[in-house]
Amino acid sequence: MVLVRSEEARERLVDLMDEGNRRKTAAAPLIAVLAADNEFHEELPALLPHFPQAKDLLFADRPVREESALLNATLQAAYFILGVRAAGLAAGPMTGFDFPGVRKEFLDDDHTPLMVVNIGRPGADAWFPRSPRLAYHEVVTTV
Amino acid sequence: MVLVRSEEARERLVDLMDEGNRRKTAAAPLIAVLAADNEFHEELPALLPHFPQAKDLLFADRPVREESALLNATLQAAYFILGVRAAGLAAGPMTGFDFPGVRKEFLDDDHTPLMVVNIGRPGADAWFPRSPRLAYHEVVTTV
Repeated sequence: MVLVRSEEARERLVDLMDEGNRRKTAAAPLIAVLAADNEFHEELPALLPHFPQAKDLLFADRPVREESALLNATLQAAYFILGVRAAGLAAGPMTGFDFPGVRKEFLDDDHTPLMVVNIGRPGADAWFPRSPRLAYHEVVTTV
Repeated sequence: MVLVRSEEARERLVDLMDEGNRRKTAAAPLIAVLAADNEFHEELPALLPHFPQAKDLLFADRPVREESALLNATLQAAYFILGVRAAGLAAGPMTGFDFPGVRKEFLDDDHTPLMVVNIGRPGADAWFPRSPRLAYHEVVTTV
């Protein structure tokens, strides 16, 4: 996670956002760039003490790591969004930005950008009306 | 989401799980197969009434849809896991299974499997000890 706090970094990020997201990102008190760590396997011996072999047994190949990093970092992104909201702040996740540009400016080859999240207290009239949802039978099949 | 409730379907699914996951999946009261809908854009005019053009403007191309479906369905999978746990049940998400096999047996070409989630009340001694976590400074960079 890269937290964008300086004005200099904010300006670089705003330039990389799609036009419709620039004003919001320029105004947010805090911005988080969330990324997947494609070299996460290096941490596994410390993080998975019950299965330290996972590093070499399951994740020796970079494409396998990238797929797992994407899945697991995206789950973490959802938890992060809920955590921000649980702390009483608004989280505005966005994927409308220049992904290669954000990677180059804020990350490196080992980190894949997932989303940019504006964080702060919402302004007046910040919300769209709640959109319709799919019905249960449109989403769930039982076998 | 495919909810596996019948014994016949459960047996088909257990056969597709990696060996280490078979006993758990055979014993779980309920199993959910979570998938990304790669044709989600068909729903956008109904779900995004403030931006009905999104369907054709943003998601005309299948590869773009697949990437967006993967990201958004994975976020939903995290919310689903938390929802199950918030309801007082245990959720055991797994990616150790035959993905092409699950797709063929339970889904179709328009749906990509993400994970299989065992759902129920945990047995005695169901948990590993809490594993170590990375420290803040190992995860967060501030610019």
